[in-house]
Formats: sequence, structure tokens, C-alpha cells
Amino acid sequence: MTQGFTHFDADGQAHMVDVGAKAETRRIGIAEGRITMAPETFAMVQSGSAKKGDVIGIARIAAIQGAKRTADLIPLCHPIPLTRVTVDFALDAAAHTITCTATAETVGRTGVEMEALTAVQVGLLTIYDMCKAVDRGMTMDSIRLLEKQGGKSGHWRADAT
Amino acid sequence: MTQGFTHFDADGQAHMVDVGAKAETRRIGIAEGRITMAPETFAMVQSGSAKKGDVIGIARIAAIQGAKRTADLIPLCHPIPLTRVTVDFALDAAAHTITCTATAETVGRTGVEMEALTAVQVGLLTIYDMCKAVDRGMTMDSIRLLEKQGGKSGHWRADAT
Amino acid sequence: MTQGFTHFDADGQAHMVDVGAKAETRRIGIAEGRITMAPETFAMVQSGSAKKGDVIGIARIAAIQGAKRTADLIPLCHPIPLTRVTVDFALDAAAHTITCTATAETVGRTGVEMEALTAVQVGLLTIYDMCKAVDRGMTMDSIRLLEKQGGKSGHWRADAT
Amino acid sequence: MTQGFTHFDADGQAHMVDVGAKAETRRIGIAEGRITMAPETFAMVQSGSAKKGDVIGIARIAAIQGAKRTADLIPLCHPIPLTRVTVDFALDAAAHTITCTATAETVGRTGVEMEALTAVQVGLLTIYDMCKAVDRGMTMDSIRLLEKQGGKSGHWRADAT
Amino acid sequence: MTQGFTHFDADGQAHMVDVGAKAETRRIGIAEGRITMAPETFAMVQSGSAKKGDVIGIARIAAIQGAKRTADLIPLCHPIPLTRVTVDFALDAAAHTITCTATAETVGRTGVEMEALTAVQVGLLTIYDMCKAVDRGMTMDSIRLLEKQGGKSGHWRADAT
Amino acid sequence: MTQGFTHFDADGQAHMVDVGAKAETRRIGIAEGRITMAPETFAMVQSGSAKKGDVIGIARIAAIQGAKRTADLIPLCHPIPLTRVTVDFALDAAAHTITCTATAETVGRTGVEMEALTAVQVGLLTIYDMCKAVDRGMTMDSIRLLEKQGGKSGHWRADAT
Repeated sequence: MTQGFTHFDADGQAHMVDVGAKAETRRIGIAEGRITMAPETFAMVQSGSAKKGDVIGIARIAAIQGAKRTADLIPLCHPIPLTRVTVDFALDAAAHTITCTATAETVGRTGVEMEALTAVQVGLLTIYDMCKAVDRGMTMDSIRLLEKQGGKSGHWRADAT
Repeated sequence: MTQGFTHFDADGQAHMVDVGAKAETRRIGIAEGRITMAPETFAMVQSGSAKKGDVIGIARIAAIQGAKRTADLIPLCHPIPLTRVTVDFALDAAAHTITCTATAETVGRTGVEMEALTAVQVGLLTIYDMCKAVDRGMTMDSIRLLEKQGGKSGHWRADAT
Repeated sequence: MTQGFTHFDADGQAHMVDVGAKAETRRIGIAEGRITMAPETFAMVQSGSAKKGDVIGIARIAAIQGAKRTADLIPLCHPIPLTRVTVDFALDAAAHTITCTATAETVGRTGVEMEALTAVQVGLLTIYDMCKAVDRGMTMDSIRLLEKQGGKSGHWRADAT
Repeated sequence: MTQGFTHFDADGQAHMVDVGAKAETRRIGIAEGRITMAPETFAMVQSGSAKKGDVIGIARIAAIQGAKRTADLIPLCHPIPLTRVTVDFALDAAAHTITCTATAETVGRTGVEMEALTAVQVGLLTIYDMCKAVDRGMTMDSIRLLEKQGGKSGHWRADAT
Repeated sequence: MTQGFTHFDADGQAHMVDVGAKAETRRIGIAEGRITMAPETFAMVQSGSAKKGDVIGIARIAAIQGAKRTADLIPLCHPIPLTRVTVDFALDAAAHTITCTATAETVGRTGVEMEALTAVQVGLLTIYDMCKAVDRGMTMDSIRLLEKQGGKSGHWRADAT
Repeated sequence: MTQGFTHFDADGQAHMVDVGAKAETRRIGIAEGRITMAPETFAMVQSGSAKKGDVIGIARIAAIQGAKRTADLIPLCHPIPLTRVTVDFALDAAAHTITCTATAETVGRTGVEMEALTAVQVGLLTIYDMCKAVDRGMTMDSIRLLEKQGGKSGHWRADAT
């Protein structure tokens, strides 16, 4: 942790860092997060996914579109031509928790961690939105980067939790 | 929890629910969430806020702008003319955690819970983005609605945790 | 047809027309359009809607979000706080055609015909996008306003076709 | 038509397909569509184009801007750095119909058919918007891809109609 | 000038100020600015406006659309349902200068000065963009608010210059 | 100045010019502009930058985000994957003027002059917005391109003023 915050110059002013000299390489970011809800809410989401009222399907679309809006939302992010976005949801009935995992990829000069994290956040927010009429107390937790590939810093994996 | 998911019609199809007959009342949503980081990262953010490299100031602006993008991001949200957005950050040195609290208000026909939650998510994501060069393992947790005022459902407060 | 194009002033210059003196009334726009595809493509969409690969569900979400982007897309449209958007799809197996019908509502100073039409166009485009790998020859037709309520011009219905 | 819908994975879940391994080649998409109006409306548009009240000129600008919004509107579209967009309008006085033809190009990893189609849709919608005060019964038809060049699938042309 | 900066709270933190208690009144903002170019460039713009290559017509559309994007661009601006936007351009052949004047209106809780100013800026930038291939040295000057009506602060006019 | 307006074709119709055959080279655009305010306003901004109420810090973030919105705002601009954006502000107490200088870079097929100019305009507008409660008479001047590097037309510098 000897390196400083790259988003500030020597005078402490924010800037969008220069990535023009970086190589265009394949870069992958994988992030996850979860939303915990009341058992009854969870049951409604679960039945909807199989039959009708497809909360998960809508959250997936919102997450994919959210990934594309990352540079609009995060001030110092570079606009990135994403080459792939996938979003998965795992339902844990025992914990009445839904875990969202997003993978973003590009062939470019800077990483796509933020795109993966933004997809997760928007996916979870969309679940919250669709279920909030029955359950305002849902909580989103453990939103974090799982893995990063490509670029000078190479492969990084989160510690197991 | 007798009420169903309002975002689906009788056939289970998603729609943007009809709020045309609702009264225009003052509505408030308050949400919070936190990001936990390595102690060294926290120290860098803390010193920057006082002097230069103002991570918190930038995250605040991003959060406010994020609130305005809510209806773009969340598929079934109504576009809402926000009348107020405030975003605060509390730094907890012992836990090396930053808590973001956002308040959104409108005078309108539907609530602003999602605007407050979106502000929190974008605020936390912006902190992540600016610190990720030194700390990829930061985690965002406990993102939830704290309070809601206005509208037919009245005043709601999260349980103390 | 004695009235001129309202989007131009006396000198022929485009402007966003003044609706400030109009009353805030409930306004409804209903539009429809259809996409015709090869029988095999239609069969794939139809089976997907029931089981997996939910083309229709995704097109509905895109259409709803598209309605919210109308003022971004159509230069002289006023930004409008939509109070309701619904989008339905009817599958006609004999004609291997999918018809999209969108309803937009607001309580405002100007109509929502363009929001309903934009929802239909984006809904049909999304179907095209998801099916184009197997069928590039799909055609979109009969996109038109069906009905309009509210405002000074009152109720209007398209002629039966 | 042996190939399946590429926008869904083996489990039927939507994703933005991986184009990271595709070559960056020059890709062209050409689309068209038409709007039919009352003879009096057509006459007003036609005279405006020559003199003042330039409906066509405004529709062209909206169409070009619409092409740039494609990935915002169509959920599973990749963001694409367009290298060229042209939009033409042909006026057919006998049929009181305006045909919009759009060409989009990129040097990239995926095609630009959707960008061309979106340009056409937004161009036609803009004409509708500007003429709707005098003619609500206008209809948009025959919106389709005309031609596609570049990429693994090579050159494709629509059948003559 | 006894009033402080309203965009900061007592601790100096930025916020979107609370306008929820303000009355909905008709509010008008008028702004102007000019771009000065080489005489040859001016002559090309001038001839284009009359005949073909309509720089001014395109800049007008961009300015109107720009007004609608104000809250996206200016961090602490409230989203505002504009009820009218007009943009005029005056060509001064002697000074080879084009002056853009924009008027924005709403019936709302906060003013539309920023919408008028943003329209002017985007209008001038669009002229610059379309002429830059022949003249990179164009300069934009005297961009300022001319007049403001409505709201508690009442009528304001710029001093004559 | 023998070259014509490239944004129009031979018939005078606007288009997004074809840059597909241009080489991907490093391109830089540098622009500047200033805002002049009352001495008291200037003093408030100056003290805020050092202590609290950080007008300049917020304007910098808005300017960087504005650069990313250029292709959304300027109709015929190509979408460009920016590789760097920096924005600086110089405070001149004698003239009570703040000068904003923005640098944009890409590795691409077309220049980034418009991105640099848009950053400056949005930066100045944001200062105006935050100070307008105390000073509506601020004026923005001398917004112009300072320098351009890369591409076929090579290096260009504005004349000293």
C-alpha cells in the first residue's frame, strides 16, 4: 500500500487518470453482493421467478444496463466499451437472501471493476424497488469485488470470507 | 404483508404503477450504508478530507447526481422532481468505516426511497473507485432505508440495529 | 387541419412550445405497433416466454424505460413526470407477428402520445435485437397512436383499420 | 436458422454476449422505415423543408443523436464507438409518405444494425412529434434492416419487397 | 449580497437545497452569449442558413435539448419540468459574430436561469463543432443571464453593457 | 480555409462524418474560459476553496463529467473513449476572475477539442450555479480552444491574446 490515490494529482486535485499509454488487454471484473429480506418476501420472489412476477429477470436487465451507465455515475471513471456483461442471482432460502454476481469484460486500457460493482448495486436496488411495497426493511450487504484480471496489476482475488 | 408486489399486474407482467390518483404530498426518504476499508486506506481518506484529495467531497457530489438518475437506472421507478437531496458521511476511525446517509425529498405522487438508496449506493461506489488503487478489498454493507415520510402509508422507521 | 405546426414559430424556427398556461389534467396516450418475423423465430419467442429466454419480458422492461427517455430522444418534447406506463404484447401465431401496445399517463400540461409511441418503438427494437441472430428480415409495421385522452383537444381515437 | 438466440445463456438467462474475442473490423448497418400521413400534412412538411419549419432537418439531427443512444435504450446492446452516421429522407408525394434511411458504421467487435434501426425509429418519431398537432393518424411502417456488412456473418441484404 | 452561498450547509457541505416549501410559480430565465469567428467562416454560416448546411438550425435543436439536460450536467441543479424553451440566433456581419439568446420557462419551485444558460452554451458549442474544420480560433464570449422572472427574488435584469 | 464544413454532405445535409478510415492516434485537446464576478463573490469562492464550501472542487468534478457527455450534447460529435481529463482553475484576485483550463485525451480516430470545450463550459456553468444566489451578473468569456495535438491536421495552437 505504498501507492497513493491515483485519482488525485500532486496538488490533491481530482482528475481522470491518463490511461492512454496503457496496453489494450482483456480485462475482467467480478463483483457480488446480497440482499436479505423477510421470509415471506423471499418466498414471493422465489415463486415469481418460476412462474410470474419475475423480479429476478427484471433485476438482471437493470444490472446489465447499469453496468453501461458506470461512467455516467462515477465521476472519475473512464468510458469503457464493454465486451461482455453477465449477471447471476443465487437464492438462499435458509437465509432468505439473494446474492447477485456480475461479471464485466472489456478489451481496453483500464479495468472494469467499477462496472461489475455498479451492475451488482443496480441489480440489488431493483430487487429492493420491486419488493418494497411488502418489505421496507430489506438490507444490502457484502457488496465487494471478487476478482480482477488483466492490466499491469494482474490477477487479484478477494480473500475467502 | 397482505399486500402483493405492486410492480406486477394480475397476470404477473411488470408495469410502472399508476400513481395519477395519488395526492401530491411532501415525501421524504432517508437511507444509509457503509464502506469498510483497510486502516491505511481509511487514514488516507481522512487526511484528504481535511486537506487535499477530497474523496468525501467528490462522493457527495456523485451521490447527489446519482439520486437524480434513479428513474434511469431502476426500471419501474417513476421520474420524480426532487426538491431536496442531502448526503452526509460519518467517519468511524475505530472501525475504519465510512457511513453515508442520504435524504431525498419531493412534493409528488410517489415516494423517494429509491432516490435516497441510489444516492447512498453511488456515494459508496465513488469512494470505492477513488480508493481502489490502494485497497481492492473494501466492502459495502448495511445499505438500507432508515425512514420514510409522506404518502398513504405514512411514517415508517427502520428497526434499530 | 386549419392549425399549423405548433413546433415552429412565425418565422419557421423550431421551439419547445409554451405549455405553461395549460391546465394540469390527467392525460393518457395509447400506441401500438407490431413486428413480423419468420415462423421459426416466432416459435422460439413463444416458447421462451413460457419457459426460458424471456424475450417478451425483457422487451417490456426496455419499453417502459424507453418511455422515460422520450424527452431525451425527441428534440421538442417536454420533460414529463409520467404517472403510469404499461406495455402489453399479443402474440399472433397465424401471422407470426407480435403486437406491442403501450399506455402512458401523466397529470400534466401536455400530452403523452410521444411517450406511448416511444415505448412501442423501443419494445419492438428490443425484440428485433434479441432475435436478430436467427432472423435479420423481421419488419416493424403499423406503429401508430391508438387513443389520446385529456387536454384541450379532448378524446381522440384512431380509425379502425 | 440452426443457431439459437445468442442473448440467452444455456439456462435461458439474458446476458450481454461476449464479443471480446471477435476481431475489430469495419461494420456497416443500413436500415429504413417510412411514415405515411395525410396529404395536407405531407404538403406542409414538403414546403417546410424548402423554406422554413424544417421538419426533415430536425428529424435528421434527432436520428443521428438517437443512434448514439442505442446502448442506453436496448438492454443487451454493447456500447459502440460509432465512426459514421448518415440519415436520409425521401419524400414520395404520390403516397404522401416519407422514407427514412440510416447508415451506421463502426470499426469494432460487433455490428451496428441496432444503431441504424434506432436512428430510423427516432427520425420517424420526431416527424410524428412535429406534425401531430395537425395529424394524429400518421402511421410508421416497414421499419427493417436493409443491409449489413462486416463481421463473421459477412454481407447480408434484405430481400427486395 | 448579504446572503451566503445557498448550495452549502452550515458545515460547508454541498447539497441540493430544499425548495419543497416554495410556491409553484411561473418562472422565466433569459440568457445570451456570442461566438466570434473569422469573416470567411461567418460568411459560410450565413449562406448555409439561407440555403443548405444549416448550422444555425442544428445549433438551435442542440440548445433546446441541452436545456433539458441541465440537471444532468450541473450537480446541484434540481430536475425541472420545463414548459417552454426558445432559442434565437442573431448574425452580426460587421463583427462576424453570432449571438445566441435562450429563454426557458417552468411552472415550478425553483428558477430556470441555469437551463437558459446551458441552452446558450450548448448552442454555441454546436456552432463551434460544425465550423471547427475551417476555423479553430473561434471564441465564445459574454455568456450571461439577461433576465429572470418569478419566485421570491422577483424580477431581475442584467445591467445594460 | 479552402476546406468546407465537413459536417454537411454535398447536398448540405448534416451527418456524422466518416472517421472509420482514420488512424487511431493519441489526440489531445486543451481549452480554456473564464468567469468574472463581483469582488465579494470572488472572495467567497476563494475562501471556500481553502476551507469549506468548495465551489472549485465541485466545478472540477462537473467539468470532468461534462467532458464524458459531449457526444450526448453536441449532435454531430462521435462518441469517444476518453483516456484522460484534467481540469484546472486559476483564481485572479485582481480581476476577480476564475479561469478554467481543461485537457482531454484519447487514443482514437477523431479529435477531442469538443470534449475539452464542453468540460470548460460545464465547469464555468457550475461555478455560476453555485454563486448565483449572491451574484446573478457573472459573465463567462474567452472560451476557446488553446491547443490541439494528433490526427492528420497535426499540432495547432491558438494565437496568444
